[in-house]
Amino acid sequence: MKAQIAIDMMGGDHGLPVTLAAAARFLNERPHVTTLLVGDETLLRAQLANYRLVEGERVVIVHAPEIVAMGESPAVALRTKKKSSMRVAIDCVRDGSAQAAVSAGNTGALMATAKFVLKMLPGIERPAICTALPNRKGHTHVLDLGANVECNADHLFQFAVMGSVLVEAYDDNPSPRVGLLNVGAEAIKGNDTVKAAAALLAEGPINYIGFVEGDDIYKGDVDVVVCDGFVGNVALKTSEGLAKMMTQFLREEFSRSLLSKLAAVIAMPVLKRLKKRLDPGRYNGASFLGLQGIVIKSHGGADVAAFTSALNVALREIEKDVPRRIDLRLGQLLNEKELA
Amino acid sequence: MKAQIAIDMMGGDHGLPVTLAAAARFLNERPHVTTLLVGDETLLRAQLANYRLVEGERVVIVHAPEIVAMGESPAVALRTKKKSSMRVAIDCVRDGSAQAAVSAGNTGALMATAKFVLKMLPGIERPAICTALPNRKGHTHVLDLGANVECNADHLFQFAVMGSVLVEAYDDNPSPRVGLLNVGAEAIKGNDTVKAAAALLAEGPINYIGFVEGDDIYKGDVDVVVCDGFVGNVALKTSEGLAKMMTQFLREEFSRSLLSKLAAVIAMPVLKRLKKRLDPGRYNGASFLGLQGIVIKSHGGADVAAFTSALNVALREIEKDVPRRIDLRLGQLLNEKELA
Repeated sequence: MKAQIAIDMMGGDHGLPVTLAAAARFLNERPHVTTLLVGDETLLRAQLANYRLVEGERVVIVHAPEIVAMGESPAVALRTKKKSSMRVAIDCVRDGSAQAAVSAGNTGALMATAKFVLKMLPGIERPAICTALPNRKGHTHVLDLGANVECNADHLFQFAVMGSVLVEAYDDNPSPRVGLLNVGAEAIKGNDTVKAAAALLAEGPINYIGFVEGDDIYKGDVDVVVCDGFVGNVALKTSEGLAKMMTQFLREEFSRSLLSKLAAVIAMPVLKRLKKRLDPGRYNGASFLGLQGIVIKSHGGADVAAFTSALNVALREIEKDVPRRIDLRLGQLLNEKELA
Repeated sequence: MKAQIAIDMMGGDHGLPVTLAAAARFLNERPHVTTLLVGDETLLRAQLANYRLVEGERVVIVHAPEIVAMGESPAVALRTKKKSSMRVAIDCVRDGSAQAAVSAGNTGALMATAKFVLKMLPGIERPAICTALPNRKGHTHVLDLGANVECNADHLFQFAVMGSVLVEAYDDNPSPRVGLLNVGAEAIKGNDTVKAAAALLAEGPINYIGFVEGDDIYKGDVDVVVCDGFVGNVALKTSEGLAKMMTQFLREEFSRSLLSKLAAVIAMPVLKRLKKRLDPGRYNGASFLGLQGIVIKSHGGADVAAFTSALNVALREIEKDVPRRIDLRLGQLLNEKELA
């Protein structure tokens, strides 16, 4: 199966040195993929050879003279930067020249642009941002991670269905376990919104297992954790902050004295395995769910390996036809509701 | 200065083996403290000698025949268990025989009972649960951690003031930096509630530094992080889950082969220091703020060292006269508002 991916080459904290190196690696690893490198064509042409890339069937340069800055207002970017690398990459998905767009740029602007250009799937009121996080046994998908700071029960219900369909397709998991994030597992716990969402999910369209708590994200007993974007964003960033602090403490303790430095040398293979296992880059690449097309957001600070992961997420969603599957499932549910 | 602390001896996952051992350790370390051991007097008397405790001026047994179960409904516990160890410990604070109560029991029941028996401070609409978490440079106090699953801007404002006063007193910090937890640092980010709370705090009663994100909890650049109880609880439990997973991965990697086991032996002193530094027990003891009295909640699963930490939190709040300070500061703010 052939796949075309449009890459916003100018987005993110590092720009071309990361995006070009990742594109080169990705093209090497995935011989059936075509990349559309979207950005300033002069800059791109000047740099291609440094990454052993040659323009041709699999490496297509698409010119975009503007760049959306990381701190720019999404509304302003959407209105004024119609030739930005981000916008043009998404345009490629709309016009069918690509099946997915990947960007490490400004999240808010990317989401606003994706909604505007690609439109929502019928029946979905809000898009959601979803990513996998490592757990003790594999990984857990969590959504929404920040697209919606206020959600009602219907939105949470839709997120749950979208997350379930994503994991079903993405992980070849026939019946993903879906939990609603709450402050306790008992039915009386939580605010009115999660209670109402729980009632909707209890009607059975997916494998809803009930309320879960923050620590359940990392236990491995739930496949999809659903929450509003405020809570999800706090959970994600709190995790990032704690992981960084723990890693720093580990480094500090291993460099405290000559003896501990020696211990570090001996423990190096173990520490390297640990680092690899916890590497957030492995899970880089958040899906914007609910759109009529595939858009993957890479972390702004992603390195080459992490940005390559985001490209692989896009490829997998193309292969698994994720938006169409979500559309089908939701269409079914809406029909059932109308018939009922 | 003399201090009397009422301890719910029957609460928590472990009961007497932990609470008695912790009381004994605490009494040894703190010669000016009196403990009121609240629980089944027959059981307590039978066990005292095992922990080298002798009834007397510093070890007073207060009989309480009932126990609130960990999963019991707070409303039911409050209505039907008037002789529970938890309730009687809080009664001791109300009648003045103790200056603080400490319990590892059911959080919801403890909060409901504390509110009912001790009453709120004037001007405080909701109590909040506050605890310290380690950060790169020291610790951060976070509130609310779960007392209130829905909060308005006034509640968040009051939490901010209470947290600021607590840290001022507790850490001898003349001007604690207080941040509002949000999904971004920019003023346009977040939901209406945090924006309205930010406007109230910008008027200047405390050292408000603006919005902070989840990872800021662990950076050490903010002393008090304020959020509603839903978000705070998710942040806390997500952190617990991630820390446990990382510790497990560390253990697994160090026991994978003979070679890594050898590395573990050599790295042992380093790993022990790391463990100590990250030990959540060091920070055990959450304050219920906003009450007319001091109530400290220990983690249900606390071990002896952790439960001793909770007793020390109670002692420090007594020494620093935390509830009266909060009352004074809020009285001032309310007066200023009326005059304005």
